[in-house]
Amino acid sequence: MALSWFAVLAITTPLGVVAYRNGLALTPQMGWNTWNYFGCNVSESTILSAAQAIVDNGLDKYGYEYVIVDDCWHDSTRDPDTGAPRPDPTRFPNGIKAVADEVHSLGLKFGIYSDAGEYTCGGRYGSLGYEEIDAKTYASWDVDYLKYDNCFNDGQSGIPLVSFNRYANMSRALNATGRPILYSMCNWGQDGPWDWAPTIANSWRISGDIFDTFDRADDRCPCTSAIGCLLSGWHCSVMNVINKMSSLGQKAGPGIGWNDADMLEVGNGGMTKSQYIVHFSFWAILKSPLILGNDVTQMTNETLEIITNDAIIAINQDASGSPASRIWVVNVTGGELQLWAGSLSTGATVIGLLNSSPTDQTIDLKMADVFIDSSAQVKTAKYRLYDLWQRSSSNDTVWGKDIGVVSGEVPGVSLAPQSCLI
Amino acid sequence: MALSWFAVLAITTPLGVVAYRNGLALTPQMGWNTWNYFGCNVSESTILSAAQAIVDNGLDKYGYEYVIVDDCWHDSTRDPDTGAPRPDPTRFPNGIKAVADEVHSLGLKFGIYSDAGEYTCGGRYGSLGYEEIDAKTYASWDVDYLKYDNCFNDGQSGIPLVSFNRYANMSRALNATGRPILYSMCNWGQDGPWDWAPTIANSWRISGDIFDTFDRADDRCPCTSAIGCLLSGWHCSVMNVINKMSSLGQKAGPGIGWNDADMLEVGNGGMTKSQYIVHFSFWAILKSPLILGNDVTQMTNETLEIITNDAIIAINQDASGSPASRIWVVNVTGGELQLWAGSLSTGATVIGLLNSSPTDQTIDLKMADVFIDSSAQVKTAKYRLYDLWQRSSSNDTVWGKDIGVVSGEVPGVSLAPQSCLI
Amino acid sequence: MALSWFAVLAITTPLGVVAYRNGLALTPQMGWNTWNYFGCNVSESTILSAAQAIVDNGLDKYGYEYVIVDDCWHDSTRDPDTGAPRPDPTRFPNGIKAVADEVHSLGLKFGIYSDAGEYTCGGRYGSLGYEEIDAKTYASWDVDYLKYDNCFNDGQSGIPLVSFNRYANMSRALNATGRPILYSMCNWGQDGPWDWAPTIANSWRISGDIFDTFDRADDRCPCTSAIGCLLSGWHCSVMNVINKMSSLGQKAGPGIGWNDADMLEVGNGGMTKSQYIVHFSFWAILKSPLILGNDVTQMTNETLEIITNDAIIAINQDASGSPASRIWVVNVTGGELQLWAGSLSTGATVIGLLNSSPTDQTIDLKMADVFIDSSAQVKTAKYRLYDLWQRSSSNDTVWGKDIGVVSGEVPGVSLAPQSCLI
Amino acid sequence: MALSWFAVLAITTPLGVVAYRNGLALTPQMGWNTWNYFGCNVSESTILSAAQAIVDNGLDKYGYEYVIVDDCWHDSTRDPDTGAPRPDPTRFPNGIKAVADEVHSLGLKFGIYSDAGEYTCGGRYGSLGYEEIDAKTYASWDVDYLKYDNCFNDGQSGIPLVSFNRYANMSRALNATGRPILYSMCNWGQDGPWDWAPTIANSWRISGDIFDTFDRADDRCPCTSAIGCLLSGWHCSVMNVINKMSSLGQKAGPGIGWNDADMLEVGNGGMTKSQYIVHFSFWAILKSPLILGNDVTQMTNETLEIITNDAIIAINQDASGSPASRIWVVNVTGGELQLWAGSLSTGATVIGLLNSSPTDQTIDLKMADVFIDSSAQVKTAKYRLYDLWQRSSSNDTVWGKDIGVVSGEVPGVSLAPQSCLI
Repeated sequence: MALSWFAVLAITTPLGVVAYRNGLALTPQMGWNTWNYFGCNVSESTILSAAQAIVDNGLDKYGYEYVIVDDCWHDSTRDPDTGAPRPDPTRFPNGIKAVADEVHSLGLKFGIYSDAGEYTCGGRYGSLGYEEIDAKTYASWDVDYLKYDNCFNDGQSGIPLVSFNRYANMSRALNATGRPILYSMCNWGQDGPWDWAPTIANSWRISGDIFDTFDRADDRCPCTSAIGCLLSGWHCSVMNVINKMSSLGQKAGPGIGWNDADMLEVGNGGMTKSQYIVHFSFWAILKSPLILGNDVTQMTNETLEIITNDAIIAINQDASGSPASRIWVVNVTGGELQLWAGSLSTGATVIGLLNSSPTDQTIDLKMADVFIDSSAQVKTAKYRLYDLWQRSSSNDTVWGKDIGVVSGEVPGVSLAPQSCLI
Repeated sequence: MALSWFAVLAITTPLGVVAYRNGLALTPQMGWNTWNYFGCNVSESTILSAAQAIVDNGLDKYGYEYVIVDDCWHDSTRDPDTGAPRPDPTRFPNGIKAVADEVHSLGLKFGIYSDAGEYTCGGRYGSLGYEEIDAKTYASWDVDYLKYDNCFNDGQSGIPLVSFNRYANMSRALNATGRPILYSMCNWGQDGPWDWAPTIANSWRISGDIFDTFDRADDRCPCTSAIGCLLSGWHCSVMNVINKMSSLGQKAGPGIGWNDADMLEVGNGGMTKSQYIVHFSFWAILKSPLILGNDVTQMTNETLEIITNDAIIAINQDASGSPASRIWVVNVTGGELQLWAGSLSTGATVIGLLNSSPTDQTIDLKMADVFIDSSAQVKTAKYRLYDLWQRSSSNDTVWGKDIGVVSGEVPGVSLAPQSCLI
Repeated sequence: MALSWFAVLAITTPLGVVAYRNGLALTPQMGWNTWNYFGCNVSESTILSAAQAIVDNGLDKYGYEYVIVDDCWHDSTRDPDTGAPRPDPTRFPNGIKAVADEVHSLGLKFGIYSDAGEYTCGGRYGSLGYEEIDAKTYASWDVDYLKYDNCFNDGQSGIPLVSFNRYANMSRALNATGRPILYSMCNWGQDGPWDWAPTIANSWRISGDIFDTFDRADDRCPCTSAIGCLLSGWHCSVMNVINKMSSLGQKAGPGIGWNDADMLEVGNGGMTKSQYIVHFSFWAILKSPLILGNDVTQMTNETLEIITNDAIIAINQDASGSPASRIWVVNVTGGELQLWAGSLSTGATVIGLLNSSPTDQTIDLKMADVFIDSSAQVKTAKYRLYDLWQRSSSNDTVWGKDIGVVSGEVPGVSLAPQSCLI
Repeated sequence: MALSWFAVLAITTPLGVVAYRNGLALTPQMGWNTWNYFGCNVSESTILSAAQAIVDNGLDKYGYEYVIVDDCWHDSTRDPDTGAPRPDPTRFPNGIKAVADEVHSLGLKFGIYSDAGEYTCGGRYGSLGYEEIDAKTYASWDVDYLKYDNCFNDGQSGIPLVSFNRYANMSRALNATGRPILYSMCNWGQDGPWDWAPTIANSWRISGDIFDTFDRADDRCPCTSAIGCLLSGWHCSVMNVINKMSSLGQKAGPGIGWNDADMLEVGNGGMTKSQYIVHFSFWAILKSPLILGNDVTQMTNETLEIITNDAIIAINQDASGSPASRIWVVNVTGGELQLWAGSLSTGATVIGLLNSSPTDQTIDLKMADVFIDSSAQVKTAKYRLYDLWQRSSSNDTVWGKDIGVVSGEVPGVSLAPQSCLI
């Protein structure tokens, strides 16, 4: 549900900060990345087919603009003469620049991947100690985006300063190229990047790798909080990542940068539609980058419907850049109920009501909770409610279905299993 | 209640230490700061109106002497020639020194704000790397006080030594100016400043930012202990901060410095009178700086009554500088009962009995608990009890209402919801 | 049980990484070490008797190839002229090289021990500051393997970078000798070596020293997780170590290196046969090095039977090098039930079902759990099951007893106390 | 109870290590220190009276040999010309060397106090940055012992390497004087000194300051484990310290150094005789230094009886230097039952059975527990038991009362409230 018409008084003064001065990602970046679906099976055709599909499906109109090749694009060695990175000549017979040109010609932007270590996670050569030559080479290929991973980093982590220095080296190198390159840090939340990444990057991962599951606990992703997590791991579920976000929204904002909840799994088949809606909705209200991770050349209508919900995307791309905060959590059998709320630049408030349990749940939604930081006047005012996912009804608006005007509370809100209302 | 007449034997030898040698804040500093009420909306008139109101309301007579402009006083850039900071020419058309002069002419002192990072929390330029020029500039403006924040610090935290070095740079710069400038560290308790700040600062924050709530748990302030807290956050409630103080009193003292529980919210409207009394009383007995955070130009009688309780202020400003210790905590439905006690230079003992729950509570107050570190003789002696908040009765004294002489225990002490007896 | 015939689709792309470039231990190393049985009582004859027994019992045919002398081989001082280490002239009258030659002549390889500190754990001189001369000396003795311990390290630990630098010094020194020397780091899991050891070593211990007990909690081994453990200790039980491994399998692999669960206690008498089978089986599926720690000159048939189970060894040495992951844990009275699964290069899947409790347990083994990361198709396919420890029955195969074809689930699997089915 | 006659087979090989090479404290040091009783009230006469009382009471015959002046012996400033420390001329009119000479003339040794920081805990000048001049001065005063504290250390802690370097500076300075000076580190267990102090010191504190209470929980001593404790604090009870020792015994030994549980409170009046016996007994079997902290010029017979139990002292000073380990802990109402055991160089085993609760407890003492690390043969052997505190009965021996021969278990052992059997 989204609240409108009755504007919430802005409590915080908009900040003038441009912490990382490349001027990019004033709202969370959107795009597509090869990893979640293709893993190491990347090539010129993988990328160009995806770029074409993005345009053909009109995804670019919704804001998905970066086409990013993740790990394994590399030749087996660097150029022996210059030390520069080189693409795999079989997979990229025309080089990377040719791919970037083609992507640009479709009106999209092109991103690449490397690692702040000796090797990438997939075992290719990393950029540690090669920041300058690598940044220059990417710029010469007209790259617009760098995802920068964390494997095999020679112990250069453990306290913020050590991690900062390692990632700042690439930041400086990118800036020195003169080309604006969005810098997407992927250090899995180690050493609390939300505290130190804003001066060097546009976004920073806050968790180990996502897996296409809704709420499965997995020993391979042992932390339940992002704070102080010492083994980020992988196979993290959507609910694991949402819960890790619960204290971090305060650290993000326009010109500061974004908490990255990892790339989307929507369309990869491991979750139900309702679970994917939770996934996409919360990534949006948390102001995470929205980077598709499915095969965009083969999408079901269901997948398309989810990733093109323009109300949800509008919230993610709202100029206020203010991530929703979690108001409360209640444990129920097999899961949790959670209430989140966030403010928009229009004065509207976005509400996320989440049921992660496998059974129906009913709750009374109190405006005093939604506007918990606000005055009594705000808490008791009248609001018009919209349901952002019920979009086919006759009274459909830009915000979805108009639920009517409410005041005080919305009694008996029904939540299907593993679903959310936004 | 305060105990008097029957002096407690001093157990500890007064220390001769002057850890930080600027000679200031031998008792916790008192004053007023723009942030809690005005946020970034600061200007010459905001500050001068407040200064005038302080004098008009006689608050200066109670010890409130520092008038501090917090974040956002800055021009958009430093002076391009000298690198010196400059005030916003619209908000401060006469410059900062003119404001300081005016404040001084009222018999008050003037404080300013900066940040040990690239940017302030509000997105203005920080002092990291500019310590010398900034300290010199502040001194040239006749500044008496610096609040020094922690945002955007380029990862210079995580172990005490890294944080110490960053904050020590400004300490040295301030001392080098030759002007005594009270140095109020605001690193939110990161890396345990109570262990290393005494040699470089007059006070140090021990928590994330306070919010005008009594005991609301909030994901944005995730730590319940100050020790080892890795995300200080904000929206911390009064009870959250009081509990964070429970082990830290041993680290403060005259000439050593003060644990700063953050600025006061009394008068900002988010709490009941009884809750504000808890807030003010505990800040006082914990020997926190007492920095008002309300709009002093518009105060209710209730607010004035709280912030001008001279018995409470006398405890805060007692020469012994010995913060109260928590004796016990008992969980009750919806909150906690807590007993705190501390010694005064007069030999009296201050007792803080706290009920954070929403219901009435009754307890037997045992002198054996109050004097838990002392001999059997002390535990069973007779004491005269005063209630420091019941001040209007006929037998009123400097310590408040005389409750009479007690020995052994005070049975059946009643505590209203979310209140305390001091 | 091992699943075969119905190959599991490989999900992960094999990595080309050779993180530590000495080319050794592409599967976990196997061998024998003096410590668990002989402690400091080592000599030429101890080692040569063991080497001979390894050959006589045909253990070399199963892959046990490294014969390693642990601590206390040293003379009381280094060579006063060169600074080189020297063996105890009484215990090693012919020097170390003579022992290595003899071991080599038996077709085996020879390993030695030192410590990344001032002293070894047994109080001999350590290699800290002597990395170069020590590595050179070992190479001159034709040493093939170095176990490198962590005692008395002058505080050079606490963050990954400090530990990395200390262990990297020996890594560089070993590589500089030109002789391939397997580098077995023994820093007890401090500072998370799984994150930084792969670029410098072939394996890394993840826990304090094992003790010959199955599941006894012991204050001397206080951590229950390897992650963030601040006192590794010793007297760690088999179950303690298995549980510490639960999140770490993701960090190991061929060419990356191995999580070392410590040397084997099989045959040392402190556990039952069933407990030793758990011990050996889990070390195998976790891809831990398999280093015997018993007196191989005096082995019972039971001990021999366990350590020569070629199916179990084949899993350990499988080319995929993919450690099993823990799927679930259920607490039962006096212990736990656990399910682990891992993939093999043949497409088969290894299943480890563990009952650590002192009573019989029965469970339904669900294929949906075993193939928890896979598609519905994989979960419901037919599989042929083998029991790798029931090896004497008539329908015995290379994988042990053929249990038959199953689909969906195996109902009512019986687990004897403190046993496992693999 | 102590077990004798039936020697336990030594399992561990004695180590030849002399980690810190000043050759002192091959068994835990014994002596007396001013702090616990006199605090800052120290003078020549305080010390000489105590030294005389030690001799008069024959305490020196029991091993108490170091007479140590703690904090506050200092003049207000260092010598302005040389930078050397100077004693308070009023309190020490003849200087420190004269006091040391007098102490030496009584056959005792003399110790002093300083701090690895800018100031001592009592606010006098510390030795940070003055290690060389201070060590030289102490040596010139014929000092035999340095207690080296941790206050006001300018953030030089947080990781082992930083703490090590700070304390190693004084270690080097002491060694450079040529005079053997026992080096007693007092960094309150910060950064795990048991891992890195052995190469630089003779003993290291493992906790915040003790208080004269048996088991009172106190917010001023917030940690319940020594491992990873981030605020050591003070007002730690005897039980708090005993429990902190539970994993640390493995780190101590002759020539390695000792875990220091802090100075004794026996005789200071805050505990019952039975509680003081627990205190003294456990300090002894934990191989903590035994430094008296009472007023030895005024001792009750009870106090003398406790601190001169030669069997208990013999265990503390046993050449094996092997601290007892905790076998088990059982929670009972109001406290815990604990069993500890340790081996002696004679082959006997010391058993500590502890009841910290306020009520009588009865347990069956099982030899299988006492000899938990040993073979079945050892567990079922016959042992002669002695009670080391029942010393007045007719069958008294050097080990106390002979309880008789036991085998398998001692059923129905009675434990008075807050007492122990050794």
